[in-house]
Amino acid sequence: MSGVEAFDAVDVIRTKRDGGAVPEDALRWMIDAYTREYVADSQMAAFAMSVLLNGMSRDEIRVMTDAMIASGERMSFAGLGKPTVDKHSTGGVGDKITLPLAPLVASFGVAVPQLSGRGLGHTGGTLDKLEAIPGWRAALSNDEMIAQMQGVGAVICAAGSGLAPADKRLYALRDVTGTVEAIPLIASSIMSKKIAEGTDSLVLDVKFGSGAFMQDVDKARELARTMVALGTDSGVATTALLTDMNTPLGLAIGNANEVRESVEVLAGGGPADIVELTVALAREMLALAGQPDADVEAALKDGRAMDSWRRMIQAQDGDPDAALPTARETHTVTATESGVITRLEALPFGIAAWRLGAGRARAQDPVIHAAGIDLHVKPGDTVTAGQPLFTLLADDANRFARATEALEGAWEIGAEAPASTPLVLERITA
Amino acid sequence: MSGVEAFDAVDVIRTKRDGGAVPEDALRWMIDAYTREYVADSQMAAFAMSVLLNGMSRDEIRVMTDAMIASGERMSFAGLGKPTVDKHSTGGVGDKITLPLAPLVASFGVAVPQLSGRGLGHTGGTLDKLEAIPGWRAALSNDEMIAQMQGVGAVICAAGSGLAPADKRLYALRDVTGTVEAIPLIASSIMSKKIAEGTDSLVLDVKFGSGAFMQDVDKARELARTMVALGTDSGVATTALLTDMNTPLGLAIGNANEVRESVEVLAGGGPADIVELTVALAREMLALAGQPDADVEAALKDGRAMDSWRRMIQAQDGDPDAALPTARETHTVTATESGVITRLEALPFGIAAWRLGAGRARAQDPVIHAAGIDLHVKPGDTVTAGQPLFTLLADDANRFARATEALEGAWEIGAEAPASTPLVLERITA
Repeated sequence: MSGVEAFDAVDVIRTKRDGGAVPEDALRWMIDAYTREYVADSQMAAFAMSVLLNGMSRDEIRVMTDAMIASGERMSFAGLGKPTVDKHSTGGVGDKITLPLAPLVASFGVAVPQLSGRGLGHTGGTLDKLEAIPGWRAALSNDEMIAQMQGVGAVICAAGSGLAPADKRLYALRDVTGTVEAIPLIASSIMSKKIAEGTDSLVLDVKFGSGAFMQDVDKARELARTMVALGTDSGVATTALLTDMNTPLGLAIGNANEVRESVEVLAGGGPADIVELTVALAREMLALAGQPDADVEAALKDGRAMDSWRRMIQAQDGDPDAALPTARETHTVTATESGVITRLEALPFGIAAWRLGAGRARAQDPVIHAAGIDLHVKPGDTVTAGQPLFTLLADDANRFARATEALEGAWEIGAEAPASTPLVLERITA
Repeated sequence: MSGVEAFDAVDVIRTKRDGGAVPEDALRWMIDAYTREYVADSQMAAFAMSVLLNGMSRDEIRVMTDAMIASGERMSFAGLGKPTVDKHSTGGVGDKITLPLAPLVASFGVAVPQLSGRGLGHTGGTLDKLEAIPGWRAALSNDEMIAQMQGVGAVICAAGSGLAPADKRLYALRDVTGTVEAIPLIASSIMSKKIAEGTDSLVLDVKFGSGAFMQDVDKARELARTMVALGTDSGVATTALLTDMNTPLGLAIGNANEVRESVEVLAGGGPADIVELTVALAREMLALAGQPDADVEAALKDGRAMDSWRRMIQAQDGDPDAALPTARETHTVTATESGVITRLEALPFGIAAWRLGAGRARAQDPVIHAAGIDLHVKPGDTVTAGQPLFTLLADDANRFARATEALEGAWEIGAEAPASTPLVLERITA
């Protein structure tokens, strides 16, 4: 309550608590004062809970996002001379789409500034996966990043600490205060970083289902619409795909094995769902970049996407030809009966992979690049008793017990094939 | 997420956030872990906001209160050989009722263990008022307190830091996080201290109106019912009066002047509203202590209550005959027209007295004992232009400007007397 502060945190909290809209200047102050550590974590936690329970208007979300952008630096790719388009996924199990997608889109002469994160919890991080490649480094300076976008086109690297520092502090706070699931906070967290990054356009992969952050499809749709509106309001052309995350994506869950699967896709093969989603997202990205008719499949088949991948990895000191780490210990689970796989649930497989060492429980923990799960079947596949279903991968056999525990009831073998459901449920535009 | 902790704060927060009831063992853990500082302020703030917005069941409030009691020591007056009865007011403007009430009730052979607090904000603290008496000391050891209850009967002293330490930390947190107004938190905060104190029975003065903590009468009634239920569930016989706090109580607002007014009541005089509320509360207390037919008015008229007061003050090293401090500067406001006082609003008068120095803005600030306001009229009184309405009291004439600002629009002179409203609106029992 110092005389030099223009607002009072308790007033701001009470306004939101009582269901009101926080005035623009007060909301900007709140985020700024939190970044300056004048507003305490306890105050921001009470505010975040009020937002979670009482919501925010489209205007408030826009101001909140803008205030988070204003808390740090803002990049610009205006000097590149080519369109920029980024993609963001809300995260899932086996979601390695960024790996084939960024070089594929870049092979059409578009720049893809893919600032990525590390995994925490059961959804893996893109940087953790790429670090399975010997020599590859995630940290680039802004100059290196821009040079790589100019040359190779695609860059997947760590977001610098200068982008939206308010979000960094708020995200860590939400994680420990039960305020992660607030749509206005999720939307402003994701979009503040993407807008600050300076991309021209953005495609969002918003997931629903067991392995997604937002399990409920209606909530996922609301989040997608909120983010598309936010991007549009801020001058970033944004579209979203609402995609099914009830089943792991592809056959690999982990780090090194996900890189391997991505390379298969870039070589023109790979699991059907990974190819489908990669192609769907690439089409959206290229449409926003002015190439609505680009023949995406051709670039996967004729090696253009693979060339782009190799150059992208090499530009960040990675060796695309190096052998990837393999697990010291494996444990294969087989079918106890014959039938059809009717269910193979993403969340328990994500948790099991995490317990095998593929993910981290605390931000400072390392991941084990060879750890994870290789699936041998997917829902709809016919199996006979004794046939391998999946293989657990770890560096220490002691990890298998707790991973197996997580997998209890995670798959089902029945008499009839399950009804097929679309992978891409909806396309959401401004 | 240490392995030795039985619960996880985020799970507890999410349960309440999603509208569920927190299981008893988890709620007890939450309060205990917060006292041990394992649960962070930010986590408790998010939890408090969830409680404010989603409420708590009667059972949850009982467990919460019990857990706060269990965080500290529990006193017992079992060895006294006389009944004990305490009173708690939710606080108001000009509310000095504890001062005449405790000795009045004690004059009937009942022990009154009145653990009190200091004021913060516009509602004054009982200890601040009594400290206007030269020599009087608020801090007593438990042994001194029990000896005084055995001898004099009445004791008004500071609550030791051993009672409900969880509440102390939580109260300070709520103050800065916009979570003060949660009925389950108010009720458990008040009642944990009263139950830990060990009184046999308790009378609550729950106020509503402009100068009250709960301005809305329905909310005040809900709070009263919640606290009566809590006391009853915990074996403390509890009743509550719901009383009007739209107008300051009595004619004195401050510290020394409130002591002076209290002594008038103990001498058989004093303003009608103070006498009415003192008598009403004394009757409730004595009924709970087994004397439903005690002639309370007689004890005020015949000097018994005054004797009890003098002994109480002397037992705590105060001089009941010493001159009380008087203000160096005064400023009297007079009527600009003739008519009837139709409104004299508690909150602005409370804020004005606070700005004059009678209260404190921060816990560590001192109060100025001579500061405050003396009212010369009350609603319903006829006035003629030029007649004094009230006098501001301060040690520094510079304080008058901001106090006068607070009083703008705080009173009205009209043509007709306002409809009379009861001071005691309702009596609430288990």
